[in-house]
Amino acid sequence: LAEKKVLIVYAHQSAGSFSAAAKEAAVEVLKSKDCSVEVSDLYAMKFKATATAEDITGEVKNSEHFRYAEETKLAWDEGRLSADITEEQRKLQEADLIIFQFPMYWFTVPAILKGWFDRVLTLGFAYTKEKRYSNGIFKVNKTKALLSFTTGSQETMFSPTGINGDMNVTLWPLQNGILHYCGFQVLAPQIFWAPEDATPEGRSAMLAAWSTRLQGLLDEKPLFYAPMDCFDCESFQLKPESVEKLVKEFGPTAGTHCGKPLLPNNQMKAGV
Amino acid sequence: LAEKKVLIVYAHQSAGSFSAAAKEAAVEVLKSKDCSVEVSDLYAMKFKATATAEDITGEVKNSEHFRYAEETKLAWDEGRLSADITEEQRKLQEADLIIFQFPMYWFTVPAILKGWFDRVLTLGFAYTKEKRYSNGIFKVNKTKALLSFTTGSQETMFSPTGINGDMNVTLWPLQNGILHYCGFQVLAPQIFWAPEDATPEGRSAMLAAWSTRLQGLLDEKPLFYAPMDCFDCESFQLKPESVEKLVKEFGPTAGTHCGKPLLPNNQMKAGV
Repeated sequence: LAEKKVLIVYAHQSAGSFSAAAKEAAVEVLKSKDCSVEVSDLYAMKFKATATAEDITGEVKNSEHFRYAEETKLAWDEGRLSADITEEQRKLQEADLIIFQFPMYWFTVPAILKGWFDRVLTLGFAYTKEKRYSNGIFKVNKTKALLSFTTGSQETMFSPTGINGDMNVTLWPLQNGILHYCGFQVLAPQIFWAPEDATPEGRSAMLAAWSTRLQGLLDEKPLFYAPMDCFDCESFQLKPESVEKLVKEFGPTAGTHCGKPLLPNNQMKAGV
Repeated sequence: LAEKKVLIVYAHQSAGSFSAAAKEAAVEVLKSKDCSVEVSDLYAMKFKATATAEDITGEVKNSEHFRYAEETKLAWDEGRLSADITEEQRKLQEADLIIFQFPMYWFTVPAILKGWFDRVLTLGFAYTKEKRYSNGIFKVNKTKALLSFTTGSQETMFSPTGINGDMNVTLWPLQNGILHYCGFQVLAPQIFWAPEDATPEGRSAMLAAWSTRLQGLLDEKPLFYAPMDCFDCESFQLKPESVEKLVKEFGPTAGTHCGKPLLPNNQMKAGV
């Protein structure tokens, strides 16, 4: 088997953090499995988070009415994206697996990582109107992607009867709307529940479980999303016949729920 | 009646954009209703998006293991947060209504606006473990908040049978996890569906509808979220007796759905 390439996009300010330890565990285990591992350490890189005209080298097409997606698409076509974006796109294109390691901030990724999504996943490079979801650009290389994150809240708070709501709902925009949208195979998220409230032994156990999981990570089955051909090509709504098939065979997903009760763990475990 | 204060947090790069026009409409109508209006124009301000130790003036407590929430809490206590954060907090504290105006990027806010949430909603200032959700800090002043945004996708794509999934699911982390979490009364979102694909007349009609809505905005009833006393104070899960009451009287919410089918428009319309 050819050597597998892994990209870890890492977003924590401190080398002393639990997130850093989780990132280090991934580097160590994956290297021991003969993977080559690159890390984008966003804070250390002082990664630019905001989507601006400075992301384009040379003239923009319409500075009066600057449209980020269209302008960066054009710049990508012409090789005029800024060097930091181009470098991240190179890493992404070479990777077989991308792990996003971050502390959850306000029910989603920290701004610096949101900036990575906003700036690196350029129209044309990462998606087009024709190439998205199960026809997505990264489908071709079967690139896998995984969210690995810490929470501040306990797991009970993120349940269907918890005050934060079902974690599957919170994960939907990230996992369907970004990762699956670009055609990545989305592996089940690695969630470290409230490590700051855990004992040192509890934290060690969490890291040990992650290291164990990492051993077989590249062979894991991805989460299920309804394939593109289930959807009408104009409205992008499920075809009537697909609703029934989907609900019967796979169950609805957290977002495309068809008015049915949400399946437990739909965004958390493969094969549910 | 005392003059009402409105803060518009605006995140678009271009003065020629539809988002700019929606922001201008809000300024105009609200001023005509004798509100005082402040605008935080994040790109124009070159608002810093990333949460770093530079947000603190003077020494951090633990630079070896820098913890953003705890360090900024301490800095806020001691008046040592950076000037840009302090200024936004002043605006927020004075406001009766905050409107967030942005283009949806990747199913949520652009990184520059995520950075505003990450940096301005400081632990201690905007929430504590004791003061959150219906006991939240901004509950006291009955501060209202509203997401006003454009999408790239058509409305059908964001339905319970659409490929993007139910918009109510996508809104939950933002509206419950950020706005309601801090105790804001969350007004129904203002969604401009795919204005770039609309005709000039279509865009004008969208702006006209927004201007009409703005006339009565401050009198609107907020969205419903289950009150804190429905939840067990240890697990933050609904008390058994509250599940029944909630489902019967109000219906479950998009996140705290109790395994029931999601109500249509739960995060989109008040009183559903």
